[in-house]
Amino acid sequence: METEGKVIKCKAAVAWEPGKPFSIEEVEVAPPKAHEVRIKIVASGVCHTDWTFLHEVGKTMNPQPFPVILGHEGAGVVESVGPGVTKMSKGDKVIPLVVPQCGQCERCLSPKTNLCTKNWETNQQCLLADGTSRITCKNQQIYQFIGVSTFSEYTVVPEDNVTKIHPDAPLDKVCLLGCGVSTGYGAAVNTGKVESGSTCAVFGLGAVGLAAVMGCKAAGASRIFAVDINPDKSEIAKTFGATEFVNPKDHSKPIQEVLKKLTNGGVDFSLECVGNVGVMVTREWPEPRRAAVEACTPAGGVCVMVGWTRIGELTLVSEDILLGKTLKGSYFGGWKSAEAVPKLVQDYMSGKLLLDEFVTHRLTLDQVNQAFELMITGKSIRTVIKM
Amino acid sequence: METEGKVIKCKAAVAWEPGKPFSIEEVEVAPPKAHEVRIKIVASGVCHTDWTFLHEVGKTMNPQPFPVILGHEGAGVVESVGPGVTKMSKGDKVIPLVVPQCGQCERCLSPKTNLCTKNWETNQQCLLADGTSRITCKNQQIYQFIGVSTFSEYTVVPEDNVTKIHPDAPLDKVCLLGCGVSTGYGAAVNTGKVESGSTCAVFGLGAVGLAAVMGCKAAGASRIFAVDINPDKSEIAKTFGATEFVNPKDHSKPIQEVLKKLTNGGVDFSLECVGNVGVMVTREWPEPRRAAVEACTPAGGVCVMVGWTRIGELTLVSEDILLGKTLKGSYFGGWKSAEAVPKLVQDYMSGKLLLDEFVTHRLTLDQVNQAFELMITGKSIRTVIKM
Repeated sequence: METEGKVIKCKAAVAWEPGKPFSIEEVEVAPPKAHEVRIKIVASGVCHTDWTFLHEVGKTMNPQPFPVILGHEGAGVVESVGPGVTKMSKGDKVIPLVVPQCGQCERCLSPKTNLCTKNWETNQQCLLADGTSRITCKNQQIYQFIGVSTFSEYTVVPEDNVTKIHPDAPLDKVCLLGCGVSTGYGAAVNTGKVESGSTCAVFGLGAVGLAAVMGCKAAGASRIFAVDINPDKSEIAKTFGATEFVNPKDHSKPIQEVLKKLTNGGVDFSLECVGNVGVMVTREWPEPRRAAVEACTPAGGVCVMVGWTRIGELTLVSEDILLGKTLKGSYFGGWKSAEAVPKLVQDYMSGKLLLDEFVTHRLTLDQVNQAFELMITGKSIRTVIKM
Repeated sequence: METEGKVIKCKAAVAWEPGKPFSIEEVEVAPPKAHEVRIKIVASGVCHTDWTFLHEVGKTMNPQPFPVILGHEGAGVVESVGPGVTKMSKGDKVIPLVVPQCGQCERCLSPKTNLCTKNWETNQQCLLADGTSRITCKNQQIYQFIGVSTFSEYTVVPEDNVTKIHPDAPLDKVCLLGCGVSTGYGAAVNTGKVESGSTCAVFGLGAVGLAAVMGCKAAGASRIFAVDINPDKSEIAKTFGATEFVNPKDHSKPIQEVLKKLTNGGVDFSLECVGNVGVMVTREWPEPRRAAVEACTPAGGVCVMVGWTRIGELTLVSEDILLGKTLKGSYFGGWKSAEAVPKLVQDYMSGKLLLDEFVTHRLTLDQVNQAFELMITGKSIRTVIKM
C-alpha cells in the first residue's frame, strides 16, 4: 500500500498528562512538509529522560507540554521525504537526532560545541521547526518529545534531526546510539578527554554510566571505578570495562572519601551519570554531583556532569575548584551528531563498541509502561521496544 | 657588619590578633637551617589575601594562627643560606614563592598542576618545613604567613619556596610577580587558555583582575569586558587592555544578562577575580562567581575562578554546566613557580609585561596599616612597601 503523501494511521504510546501511564492509541501522522522526513520507527530504547519528562515535571524538569509522544532513542527506515530533502530518501535506514547538526550555524562551525542552534527552541518546546507537530490523536495536536517521538510506529522529523546509517545496521541495537550510549561514551572520550593510564570513577550505572565506563576503557584508563548503590550492577559494569565496583552503601564514609582513599587523593576523571539526583540522595551518597567533584584529584582532576536534569542546583566548595579542578558538562556526549552517529554505528558493526550488552529486555509498544517499571526498579539497563 | 650565622634583629609588622592593626616591632630572625635561605626583603606588595587573613578569619577564611607576620608578595636579596642550599647564594636577587616547585614530587612532574606538595601542609599552617618558624618577638614564636612573611626586613624560607631572578631586576616592581600579577595573568593564559579573537569578561579589577585583563590582551582576545562596581577602575582597565568597562551599578539587569546581551549569548572566557565575594554582593552583582559562570556562552564557554577564599560555597544551575560550559580554578595562575617567575621578570624587563602601572602607592613598613586602608576603600591597585 502506497502511503507517500497520505496521512498514516498507526499505533503510538500517548502520554496524556504528567504522572500517568501511557495509553496506546491510534494516531494520525501527517506527511512530511518541506525539509522533513517521515520515518517508520523499527525500534526504540527507553531512556530515563523519557521517564523524567513524564514523572518529574515541576521537580527536576520545567513544566512541559502535554499530550506528548515520548521516545527519543529510536531507529527506523525513511517512509517518505518532503520537498527539498537531499540527504536521504525512501528506504534509507536512519537514526533521529535529539541534537541536530545543520552544519551551517555558528555552533556547528565551532569545534568547541555540538549544540547546533537549528530547531533548538522549537525542539525544546516539543514541536517541529515550523512550531507545529505532525501527529494528532482524537483531533488534538500531540507534542513530539524534543521534536522526535519514537514511541510511535511512524514519526516526522526535520531532515537536520535525522542521520542516515549503514544499510546493514541492526536497528534494534543501534537505536541506543540515538541517546544513552552515545551520551555516556562521548562524555568520556570527547568531553572528559579521558587519558591513557588514568584513574576514572563513573557514578550511576544506567546505560549512560555503563557507556561512560566503556568510553574510559576505550581511552585506555588503567583503573575504572564503577559506582552504584545497586549491587546487581557490579557484574555488568565489569563487562564494559570497570576494574572495580564500589557500592556507597558498603561504606560508612561518604563515597568521595572512599574513592580518595583508594586512589591516593582522588581520581583523574569522574563522570556523574546519575541524572535523577533527587531520588538517590542518601547519607553515603550525599549528592552525586558534588561527590563526583570532590572525588577528583585537586592535581588537575576533571569532573564531567552528564546526567540530565533541567532544574536543579549544584553547590560546590569554592576551594575545591579554586585549587585546580575542572568541571565540565556534556550533552549528547559532545558528538557532532549527524556525522558522528553513523560512525558509531560502524564502530559497533566492526566490534569496537558494545551495544548488545546494554539490552536486557525486549518488549512491544503495548508494554511500554512495563519498560518504565523495569527501569525505575533498577531491573533493566535498556529495554528496547520493537514496533 | 657580618650577619651570617647570627640572629638578626630587625623591624617587622606583627599581627598579634585577628581584626587588629599591625604593630611595628623589633623581631629576631634566626639563621637559616638546612635547605633554607635568609632573605633581606627589599619591597613587598600588599595583597588582598593579607587583609583577608587578618580580617576575615572565620568568615571566608578558616581559623588561622596568630601572632603572624603577613606579606607574601615580596622580593629581596639573599643574606645567607643554610647547609645544602645549591640553587642560590648570598647576594642573589630572589622572589619568595607561595607555591614552591620542588621539581620532584608527583605534581611537579605532572603537566596538569602547579600545586607542588613540598612543604604544602606546613606552609598552610604558616610554618616552615620542620614545623617551626625562624622569627620570634618578645620570646614568642611568630607564624610566617604561607611560610613566607615579607612584611619584615628579613625572613627565612625553604629553598624550594624561593627563586633566583635577574640581577638587574628592580625589586620594588617585580615583587608583584610573587603573587597578584602572576596569578591573574596566568589565570588567563595558562588556566583559561584564552584564545586569539575571543571575547572575555574579567570580574573585579584589583591587581589580579587587571593582570587577567593583561593576560587576555596578550592572548589576543578581541573584546575584553572589564567589570567592577567602582567607576574609578575604568581608565586603568583600559591601560591594561580592556576594550569596554562595564559597571553593574549602571544597569538594572544582573551583570550576566548585560554581558550576554552585549555578546550575543555570552563571552567565550570569564575570569572571576573578586575573591572577597561576601563584601560585594548587591542586586546588580548577585554573586560574582555565579555571575561569571552565567555570563559565559553555553557554546563551550570557560569560566575561571581566581579570587581566593578558603571557605565559601558556590551554587550553580546544573543546566548551565550540563549544556557545555567549563568551570576551572586557578591557583598562582597555574605557573610552575620556580621556573616561571624568573621568566616573567624578564618579560617585564623586556617590556612584554606591565608592572609599573599596578603600583599606585609607595609606603614604608611603618605605614602598612595605611596600605590596607587604601586597598579596602578601592583607592589603590597595589601599594608597594619599601623596607
